[in-house]
Amino acid sequence: MTPFMNEDFLLKNDAAKVLYHEYAKVMPIIDYHCHVNPADIALDKRYSSISEVWLGGDHYKWRLIRALGTPESGVTGARAADPFGLFSNFAAVLPKAVGNPVYHWTYLELKRYFGIEKQLTPDTAKEIYDACNSKLAEPGMSARGLIERSNVKLICTTDDPVDSLLYHKQIAEDATCKVKALPAFRPDKAMSIESAGFAEYIEELSGVSGVKITGFDSLCKALDKRIEFFNEMGCRAADHALEGCNYAPAATAELNMIFGSGMSGESIAAHEAAQYRTAILLHLGRRYHELGWVMQLHFGCMRNNNARMFAHIGADTGFDSMNGQGNPSNLSYFLNALDVTGQLPRMVLYSLNPADSEIIATIAGCFMADAECPGKIQLGASWWFNDTKSGMEKQLQDYANSTLLGNFIGMLTDSRSFLSYTRHEYFRRILCNFLGRLFEDGEYADFDALCRIVEDISYNNTLRFFRFDV
Amino acid sequence: MTPFMNEDFLLKNDAAKVLYHEYAKVMPIIDYHCHVNPADIALDKRYSSISEVWLGGDHYKWRLIRALGTPESGVTGARAADPFGLFSNFAAVLPKAVGNPVYHWTYLELKRYFGIEKQLTPDTAKEIYDACNSKLAEPGMSARGLIERSNVKLICTTDDPVDSLLYHKQIAEDATCKVKALPAFRPDKAMSIESAGFAEYIEELSGVSGVKITGFDSLCKALDKRIEFFNEMGCRAADHALEGCNYAPAATAELNMIFGSGMSGESIAAHEAAQYRTAILLHLGRRYHELGWVMQLHFGCMRNNNARMFAHIGADTGFDSMNGQGNPSNLSYFLNALDVTGQLPRMVLYSLNPADSEIIATIAGCFMADAECPGKIQLGASWWFNDTKSGMEKQLQDYANSTLLGNFIGMLTDSRSFLSYTRHEYFRRILCNFLGRLFEDGEYADFDALCRIVEDISYNNTLRFFRFDV
Amino acid sequence: MTPFMNEDFLLKNDAAKVLYHEYAKVMPIIDYHCHVNPADIALDKRYSSISEVWLGGDHYKWRLIRALGTPESGVTGARAADPFGLFSNFAAVLPKAVGNPVYHWTYLELKRYFGIEKQLTPDTAKEIYDACNSKLAEPGMSARGLIERSNVKLICTTDDPVDSLLYHKQIAEDATCKVKALPAFRPDKAMSIESAGFAEYIEELSGVSGVKITGFDSLCKALDKRIEFFNEMGCRAADHALEGCNYAPAATAELNMIFGSGMSGESIAAHEAAQYRTAILLHLGRRYHELGWVMQLHFGCMRNNNARMFAHIGADTGFDSMNGQGNPSNLSYFLNALDVTGQLPRMVLYSLNPADSEIIATIAGCFMADAECPGKIQLGASWWFNDTKSGMEKQLQDYANSTLLGNFIGMLTDSRSFLSYTRHEYFRRILCNFLGRLFEDGEYADFDALCRIVEDISYNNTLRFFRFDV
Repeated sequence: MTPFMNEDFLLKNDAAKVLYHEYAKVMPIIDYHCHVNPADIALDKRYSSISEVWLGGDHYKWRLIRALGTPESGVTGARAADPFGLFSNFAAVLPKAVGNPVYHWTYLELKRYFGIEKQLTPDTAKEIYDACNSKLAEPGMSARGLIERSNVKLICTTDDPVDSLLYHKQIAEDATCKVKALPAFRPDKAMSIESAGFAEYIEELSGVSGVKITGFDSLCKALDKRIEFFNEMGCRAADHALEGCNYAPAATAELNMIFGSGMSGESIAAHEAAQYRTAILLHLGRRYHELGWVMQLHFGCMRNNNARMFAHIGADTGFDSMNGQGNPSNLSYFLNALDVTGQLPRMVLYSLNPADSEIIATIAGCFMADAECPGKIQLGASWWFNDTKSGMEKQLQDYANSTLLGNFIGMLTDSRSFLSYTRHEYFRRILCNFLGRLFEDGEYADFDALCRIVEDISYNNTLRFFRFDV
Repeated sequence: MTPFMNEDFLLKNDAAKVLYHEYAKVMPIIDYHCHVNPADIALDKRYSSISEVWLGGDHYKWRLIRALGTPESGVTGARAADPFGLFSNFAAVLPKAVGNPVYHWTYLELKRYFGIEKQLTPDTAKEIYDACNSKLAEPGMSARGLIERSNVKLICTTDDPVDSLLYHKQIAEDATCKVKALPAFRPDKAMSIESAGFAEYIEELSGVSGVKITGFDSLCKALDKRIEFFNEMGCRAADHALEGCNYAPAATAELNMIFGSGMSGESIAAHEAAQYRTAILLHLGRRYHELGWVMQLHFGCMRNNNARMFAHIGADTGFDSMNGQGNPSNLSYFLNALDVTGQLPRMVLYSLNPADSEIIATIAGCFMADAECPGKIQLGASWWFNDTKSGMEKQLQDYANSTLLGNFIGMLTDSRSFLSYTRHEYFRRILCNFLGRLFEDGEYADFDALCRIVEDISYNNTLRFFRFDV
Repeated sequence: MTPFMNEDFLLKNDAAKVLYHEYAKVMPIIDYHCHVNPADIALDKRYSSISEVWLGGDHYKWRLIRALGTPESGVTGARAADPFGLFSNFAAVLPKAVGNPVYHWTYLELKRYFGIEKQLTPDTAKEIYDACNSKLAEPGMSARGLIERSNVKLICTTDDPVDSLLYHKQIAEDATCKVKALPAFRPDKAMSIESAGFAEYIEELSGVSGVKITGFDSLCKALDKRIEFFNEMGCRAADHALEGCNYAPAATAELNMIFGSGMSGESIAAHEAAQYRTAILLHLGRRYHELGWVMQLHFGCMRNNNARMFAHIGADTGFDSMNGQGNPSNLSYFLNALDVTGQLPRMVLYSLNPADSEIIATIAGCFMADAECPGKIQLGASWWFNDTKSGMEKQLQDYANSTLLGNFIGMLTDSRSFLSYTRHEYFRRILCNFLGRLFEDGEYADFDALCRIVEDISYNNTLRFFRFDV
């Protein structure tokens, strides 16, 4: 019987313990995809309460609080109105969250950032709330303080093409800031041709880029301008949120017509939207390739499923799901279209539906001939709803079964919080346990090579793959 | 090495043993979804042979006997003609059934109900057959006797809207009957608009309900009448068998037209059938919500796949499979349509295709805002072809990964036999092993809370979720 | 801690060790589906280098070499130009291949055929290359030598209907050849109606069969002629590579029209191709049934995904993937169409997408009524991208959950190399570990019966299922 979350948490064999404590733990962190606000780093934000930093934007936790039957007034409604009430509602969730990753994240964060080892329950909520808030008042608990104590060397945020990147500039010019914060290019709004506000967004893009946008080609030119700007600001990665995975090539004339319909707010057929998005993605993929950027595709998400709550509190509030529609085989046509002209960028493919993981892994393996780097097309780390112990174990197994696990670029937080870096610890423990078991079971021979693999997946592979300069 | 199916069967860690023996085992059973015949309870049926009670209606066992190459004359053909021959044919199956749940069910049932610990093989078949039959002649081995010795407090049967529920009434009025047997509303026939016999069925429904059915609205009125009647009879749950999961809203005029076509036996297009079923399900869901019923959706089944055998021996004889068609994302549209007007009932979502389980779990999580109870939308227990040890472990993992496992309403038999209650034991052992391992591995902190979770999933959650009065 | 790949490799419990060492290991091998060249057996081919025999045609290994960023000139380009360079490039892959089956295959093959226990790395590459080449020069290392020392009794190759089977004849007539090499009928080209070269192929088939092919019926007659010929040559099995799984019945007039379009090189709609293939498969299935052949369906593969590399080095070079399209439920319609007239042959169903495995297993279970043998419709062994330790464990679990694992016909190599027979060892170890664990955990009672199951799955079931005469 192993004590609760002790130093050997998740390390169930001796090799795993050595791999984690001597190799994984000491490697710095590159958080190559997340959603933190760069302003918080630039201004070195401080937090008034644990509820603000921990429960103010975390829809993973909100879903669990709702699942207990807590009314929304005690969830998102309590953020400003009753921070301790919200904290207390979350405390009530934990004893029932056996096997849920939030349970482990919670205790890792309480322990590593606040030194709290107590169980969080309604009975202990007040005591822990106060202790956390006292701790948050200490000097090292600002945004930068949290980053530094987590040994994070580099962060990629997620940024709209129209963004001025002023905070990124400020961070880069601030000699006292020890972390590098690079933008990542996420042109989702430019791709959402059927959304309300599309025309307004394109006007904004036109203004920011200085390119008059009259059709598909000038739209691409405007995006190119912003890509150049992002590149000058140190950007090494783009990211795309896609519902499904389509591949629908179209001629420029068609694209201009579809774009025109979008601009005038006419309804866009599903097939037209797919054609439009395919064309944009192909164009952008080629530009990323030219600049040596990494293209990340996040697909398979159904969003804003709950119309009542969307009307009430908007997007990204915990009402999304995996999407069972769509055909992952289309990925292959898309990658091929870029590869056939030698313009395939490095890619990370994240699918939300775990049943598609093996298909994607085998498609990735078809596009690594004459690659300029190891593991050019990556099966992405287990994402969102798969960001669980069993999800990570499956992703590692799928990766290892289909190609060289030693090439894997490892974990990212995908988080909006500066308290999430312990997810790298969580991942590394699971990784070391996975690898250590293979060694202990006589399924892998070379322990020294395994130590290198641990270091590479924890840090080195990411550094090389994105060509970061740290 | 653990002896075969001893008291610690499936309990592979010390915590699991305590959880099972001290907490799970002693909880009563609520079998909230099954297919037993209420007449058997009302009349306290007795069984002439183990073949009758055990092999007379169990298509799980029939499939295994067929897989050995046994001709149908020795399977369903032998039910009346040669009960011992049938028993003997089943005995031949067992040694080859390593890893199959029927193997475990068989030995649990032989042990718990008949006190038999011997291996069942062709060599021991006669001896065991005779011993079982002698045992069946004892007083406590009637339908009610089997229920009582299994510590079953409440049973929900599965009933057609036109059913008179006479036997349920008789059971309720019989002071000597210690089990509660409630009806569950299953209007599959009213939804099968493309089936032969639809018009006759609607006539029958019209007669029973006293509502003249002339179109879609009056059909709904007739169903409402029956719902009221079922509700008066104590019904707390409805259940729907759906091939796939569609969502196809339609206007009343269209629905009337489709209904008219169905009544006159014209052919119904797949899309029209989907529209019709969507409308019925929406109407019924709202009614269930009003009455506080639980709506169960069983979907993803392909039925009567073998035309030759369907012609020969009809439905529910072991010729169904999982259905690879259909899009689980449609569930989200359906739940949303009910939620948006505040009329979403409590739900249990069962999908037969295990590859859809994670999608469904994440969709369920989108519809628990402002819920009137914990775990309002449940990922159903592993069903039918997933009712296996590995299937249950996956369902528990999927549930825990996506929401609060402490809310889970646990197991049901889905069975036609009064000897199946040991499936609750089987499930509880797997549950305790799953939870105990998390505790022993230091992944969950609070053993007392775990004991409560075991009691809740075994019994308390079901009681609260369905609002049963036991 | 278990030493690396020692005698108890993958055998993690005592029962597994007994099952493997005393029962599985001693059974001969029937390799009932592979892609070796019969000429190599007939001519008892010898190998000039380990690169030729090991890396000359193995696209599994090529994919791994490419994943390291090795240019194609160092992969397929190095086959003839620089055999040691290719070997050395492969050596660089291995330390990063933790958890990949190729890692285990490599060390099993080096150990069993070459007596090499050293780690293969760039440092040891030259030494091991030379040692292997010396060994290959020894008398017992010819194609037949490798077969005999692997205890292989029978091999089924994969052959086109137009093949003369001259080498099979030569092998059969060669009294010195101890292995039986039977053809298997694989009419993929006759089914690829939309491919370039279809008309030429049909001409060739016409010439070889002596049947003038003027329409769908005469095409069937020509195929029948070849089936008769294959049957005379001892053929017991057919095999079909299918992208997806369709079922689209059509009338003869339609089929003739579609066939005519194919012959004149007109474009064929996807639905027409599906109709054509359905009709051919139905016709052939009935013929196979008549002759008592086994029909193997390999489906769910997407081929030649990388157009650049296809143009460069052609098919079967490591650019295929799983196919996420298609509907496995169609299998049921197809099996039913054969069953309904009593003409369903024995079948082995292999799907490349592991998410379809449970669906297929449950469909198989619908078509075993009145079967002439145990396990008439088999869930095929884990194939290609699933040919991994975890893939095999899942396939065994899926098989056991859905029917009688004791009926399973076990493993095949699917390989192009005479060094792959250790994959049977790999499978048998995993099988024994799977079964042994169930016994040790008290989940199966009868160790003697388990020994029989091991022998049956290793050898006896295959012999009986295909009705081979060894």
